[in-house]
Amino acid sequence: MIKVGIVGGTGYTGVELLRLLATHPQARITAVTSRKEAGMKVAEMFPSLRGHIDIAFSTPEQARLADCDVVFFATPNGIAMHEARALLAAGTRVIDLAADFRIRDVAEWEKWYGMQHASPELLEDAVYGLPELNRERIRGARLLANPGCYPTAVQLGLLPLLEAGVIDIGHIIADCKSGVSGAGRKAEIGSLFAEAGDNFKAYAVAGHRHLPEISQGLAHMAGMPVGLTFVPHLTPLIRGIHATLYTRLKRDIDLQALFEHRYAHEAFVDVLPAGSHPETRSVRGANTCRIAVHRPQGGDTVVVLSVIDNLVKGAAGQAVQNMNLMFDLEEKSGLNQVPLLP
Amino acid sequence: MIKVGIVGGTGYTGVELLRLLATHPQARITAVTSRKEAGMKVAEMFPSLRGHIDIAFSTPEQARLADCDVVFFATPNGIAMHEARALLAAGTRVIDLAADFRIRDVAEWEKWYGMQHASPELLEDAVYGLPELNRERIRGARLLANPGCYPTAVQLGLLPLLEAGVIDIGHIIADCKSGVSGAGRKAEIGSLFAEAGDNFKAYAVAGHRHLPEISQGLAHMAGMPVGLTFVPHLTPLIRGIHATLYTRLKRDIDLQALFEHRYAHEAFVDVLPAGSHPETRSVRGANTCRIAVHRPQGGDTVVVLSVIDNLVKGAAGQAVQNMNLMFDLEEKSGLNQVPLLP
Amino acid sequence: MIKVGIVGGTGYTGVELLRLLATHPQARITAVTSRKEAGMKVAEMFPSLRGHIDIAFSTPEQARLADCDVVFFATPNGIAMHEARALLAAGTRVIDLAADFRIRDVAEWEKWYGMQHASPELLEDAVYGLPELNRERIRGARLLANPGCYPTAVQLGLLPLLEAGVIDIGHIIADCKSGVSGAGRKAEIGSLFAEAGDNFKAYAVAGHRHLPEISQGLAHMAGMPVGLTFVPHLTPLIRGIHATLYTRLKRDIDLQALFEHRYAHEAFVDVLPAGSHPETRSVRGANTCRIAVHRPQGGDTVVVLSVIDNLVKGAAGQAVQNMNLMFDLEEKSGLNQVPLLP
Amino acid sequence: MIKVGIVGGTGYTGVELLRLLATHPQARITAVTSRKEAGMKVAEMFPSLRGHIDIAFSTPEQARLADCDVVFFATPNGIAMHEARALLAAGTRVIDLAADFRIRDVAEWEKWYGMQHASPELLEDAVYGLPELNRERIRGARLLANPGCYPTAVQLGLLPLLEAGVIDIGHIIADCKSGVSGAGRKAEIGSLFAEAGDNFKAYAVAGHRHLPEISQGLAHMAGMPVGLTFVPHLTPLIRGIHATLYTRLKRDIDLQALFEHRYAHEAFVDVLPAGSHPETRSVRGANTCRIAVHRPQGGDTVVVLSVIDNLVKGAAGQAVQNMNLMFDLEEKSGLNQVPLLP
Repeated sequence: MIKVGIVGGTGYTGVELLRLLATHPQARITAVTSRKEAGMKVAEMFPSLRGHIDIAFSTPEQARLADCDVVFFATPNGIAMHEARALLAAGTRVIDLAADFRIRDVAEWEKWYGMQHASPELLEDAVYGLPELNRERIRGARLLANPGCYPTAVQLGLLPLLEAGVIDIGHIIADCKSGVSGAGRKAEIGSLFAEAGDNFKAYAVAGHRHLPEISQGLAHMAGMPVGLTFVPHLTPLIRGIHATLYTRLKRDIDLQALFEHRYAHEAFVDVLPAGSHPETRSVRGANTCRIAVHRPQGGDTVVVLSVIDNLVKGAAGQAVQNMNLMFDLEEKSGLNQVPLLP
Repeated sequence: MIKVGIVGGTGYTGVELLRLLATHPQARITAVTSRKEAGMKVAEMFPSLRGHIDIAFSTPEQARLADCDVVFFATPNGIAMHEARALLAAGTRVIDLAADFRIRDVAEWEKWYGMQHASPELLEDAVYGLPELNRERIRGARLLANPGCYPTAVQLGLLPLLEAGVIDIGHIIADCKSGVSGAGRKAEIGSLFAEAGDNFKAYAVAGHRHLPEISQGLAHMAGMPVGLTFVPHLTPLIRGIHATLYTRLKRDIDLQALFEHRYAHEAFVDVLPAGSHPETRSVRGANTCRIAVHRPQGGDTVVVLSVIDNLVKGAAGQAVQNMNLMFDLEEKSGLNQVPLLP
Repeated sequence: MIKVGIVGGTGYTGVELLRLLATHPQARITAVTSRKEAGMKVAEMFPSLRGHIDIAFSTPEQARLADCDVVFFATPNGIAMHEARALLAAGTRVIDLAADFRIRDVAEWEKWYGMQHASPELLEDAVYGLPELNRERIRGARLLANPGCYPTAVQLGLLPLLEAGVIDIGHIIADCKSGVSGAGRKAEIGSLFAEAGDNFKAYAVAGHRHLPEISQGLAHMAGMPVGLTFVPHLTPLIRGIHATLYTRLKRDIDLQALFEHRYAHEAFVDVLPAGSHPETRSVRGANTCRIAVHRPQGGDTVVVLSVIDNLVKGAAGQAVQNMNLMFDLEEKSGLNQVPLLP
Repeated sequence: MIKVGIVGGTGYTGVELLRLLATHPQARITAVTSRKEAGMKVAEMFPSLRGHIDIAFSTPEQARLADCDVVFFATPNGIAMHEARALLAAGTRVIDLAADFRIRDVAEWEKWYGMQHASPELLEDAVYGLPELNRERIRGARLLANPGCYPTAVQLGLLPLLEAGVIDIGHIIADCKSGVSGAGRKAEIGSLFAEAGDNFKAYAVAGHRHLPEISQGLAHMAGMPVGLTFVPHLTPLIRGIHATLYTRLKRDIDLQALFEHRYAHEAFVDVLPAGSHPETRSVRGANTCRIAVHRPQGGDTVVVLSVIDNLVKGAAGQAVQNMNLMFDLEEKSGLNQVPLLP
């Protein structure tokens, strides 16, 4: 059994990790830290875990995280970068669900995240955890940067097109819609039920932190920089991201075949039949990305629809998938949940 | 035109007052205070008011509230009790939408609200603003205690039964359900969309602050103390309260006629035809309480269903209704909104 | 492996059975019937099942249900009563998720369900499938009547009190709130998003079909008829039932201990610590009933809060639990889902 | 007072017309037809109208619509085209909220709407009712085609750019999100609360009926055909449309000034300050379109955000605005509702 520690178990990605790991056949949660809630049973804060998770929150000191095989950071940005080095030195692997190790360019990271990076020297060894893109590197990773939610949905939607080199990479548009849990379990006016309910809006059109992460990933796939317009929206869902991607074809190609072939062996990417419209609820609670590709009126504009559960394939589920790879387990281990519909 | 000041215009009852007063033909808003937002246009915080409200938030000092004819306190509990005395002395009338002046028994108030009352001497002159119960006293009021949302729905539902003396007053049950705006525009985890959405729960079963207010009102109607069990629930509505009231008949009576007769001349209480089930959305945005009365299987248990919009008849609308009475205006003035359905 | 047939796989209880059985270690779905959709892949209608359920809907004739070990009827009321006899004769066990075999009194059933019962002779052998009440009879059942959703939440909430004989059984009140999936996957105006969303209402106050089912169960527990007022409400949840139960204590007793002791060995009933308020989302997707018991202000009124997921413990999950008992499997087999929160 | 008839008062656009006209100072509703509900009080079906609308539904025969000054068709597509001719001949003006008279090209209309047009000869005189585009023609209209909801949001968002000739018209993208009331008050599985709630999806990517309407309008503004990709999405709102529009600038221009100048004198189009993100709830219940224009990272991609209430500016409100113009009333008459927030 893999001994797992979780730093920051009181947010949505934390409780989702707990949900998934509670029934993982090869992992055992040995510590969940929260300085503020130390001593309280985890299941007291999250009664959904009663009968599944018996341990209490502990302080980082009590937790002895260096004894774990792997530590997940389900923390705000800027925490893992301070603690990863010591854990790695002790031989513990680190999976950061925040953004500390996602951007290779330190200056770019510091610009978008508004703080100085505490461990720039670790960035070189950090592996970006999108298995469908770089599974082999993940297998050997000791420090894993788990992708953001929007970046996962967008990159998986564009990967086949970029690898095949069939689209105009100068003007890609990613119109993305996220449920409110994407804002985290933070007491903020804008995330209140009476604010976000029965309401729809775009936000951060001038620039969102996931823009450089997506751009970096797309450039990697294309082999050169891409032009990207990324507009996130808040929609009254609890969970779910829907990315609607627009790009222009440079030459004729069977798009359906391209996507089906690219993802034929991917357990967690499901290319829907031609003409489909994936629903966010069709992946609710599951580590799946469902994709459909369209070419309206037979024109040169490609429309890709890509949905994930932001807390699973967009966060905790992908982190478990990465853990499975890092520890040479069956990639699907513990991730066989059937989506909850309705 | 009545000159109106609003203290605390950044919460839900505040913005609702602004919505209603913006089109009130005999009132003019001259000041909206918020120490924190002073200088910002009100419509910048609430774009729904663009084109309707042009003034900016001001500090209490700038606001010169004593020049107003009436000041509404749309503030947390414990604010109005500090400021009412000076305003009253200046001849300005005061309508408190919070709880400072609702409970006549100071000790009881202090027990439930956990603070010392700053102006107990004002309680005697304060008038409880439920027009259907004591319209005449409201007309002469200088300090008005606007009822709470649950208390309005419950009291209007029980008033005909208690006045008629036809029920067992020892064991009344009020099972109430409120939308999330009832918790206010406060950054709290429990009111987040991802917490309160797709979720239903009871809260404060051991004792809620509206219990003594309701009990006081019911006792007033019955002429003696009543036994009340009050259980509030949080339901994923933005607006709306549904009170389901259970009591036992002491003698046979035509319940439908009783209710229709009692409210025949009330503009804001609508008794539905026998067999009806009022929906919260049927009063969304309007100052109306809709009521239906049932006697399931012809037994001795009476079931009253009473719905209001917690922000209108349960707060800002009733406050405007009270203002109309206090200033000898048409009681319905400015309150002719048709509910928004769907 | 148990061979399972499902009649009526296109409604919400049907798709929920499919979700649960898809990962059940000892069951294999061999047929899902739908005359209308015969030939269509089940996962084409419910993309959430892609990768989990590979079979197509079949006609009843193609399905050869008599070859199954057990057939679940996830059909409207009045279907199973026509088909159960032949299946039972063939040695196939039957679990009816509808109401055909729930009420022992045929005349009562026919009054509430508005049709003639097609197989009254089967009622005697039919077993009411509330395991916490009559587990041993379920083990031997060949025809199982799976309880309704409201009846499950209410009966589990009152069982300890009635068995202990500590309450006044003349005037029990069950104020129940259900999510909209409880109305089924039927095209009806009242269940539309724009009708049921942001709206709360009571319905069927004059009499709901679950009333005789609950009354029958409570009478069984009490050993004599009980007086029950049952008021169902529709609340804007997708899943979930919250029952708020009011009854009067006849004598002093440690309620918390009573409930904890009664359910100490029940895997699917969770008595929360004193003072708790169970949330419907804490059981979302799981076969769990969570209960809290209160005695507000120390009076003689007991308030029990009981929550279930109407599609799981209130329907498909309880049906699987019953199947497990009927086939001598581990009672929890296939029912280890962690609730989905948020 | 203008005598108003409404054909089809049982759908969402019908009840919204009733809500708006109930308080219109210069209009009186004299007939609301519904063959199915004839005889039933309108307020019995829609209790929100109790106290505001007293008449009952009537059959078309009883209604004597030709005696009205204006008749609104709040009907499905394909009804008004059969009845308009006789009304027009009688001197009654007609406002069709459906699509019968929106498309000038009969063949195009018949292709998208799948039926033969019953009155192609009326198309020439029909006026497309987007006041911001062709107010003068509306003033003289006898047969008015009220625009669709998506077309209103999209056309108002692009109008300044197209009139100014500053964008590449070959590849415009309209990514639109609609609340569920846009699907009408029809009993359909896909619009159920348990289907559309907590769910997000695109639909009709291959081609939606509003595509030719939008294309026709944009071509009119540009003076030549435009290339448009239109992707509608269903989002769990009751009301509201959010259009996110992407286009490429051909030359540098002050976008904020362009929009502000174009709409400076429009009562119902509100250009937000630079950097804003309009919310759908900021127009809930009001006849307002709010627009913000962005140029992310200073590139050549323009992003326009445009929100309306699909039932008001997207349907009934715009119809009343058109009626006001046609009868030479104050354009804002009866349309002064303050949006309902929260």
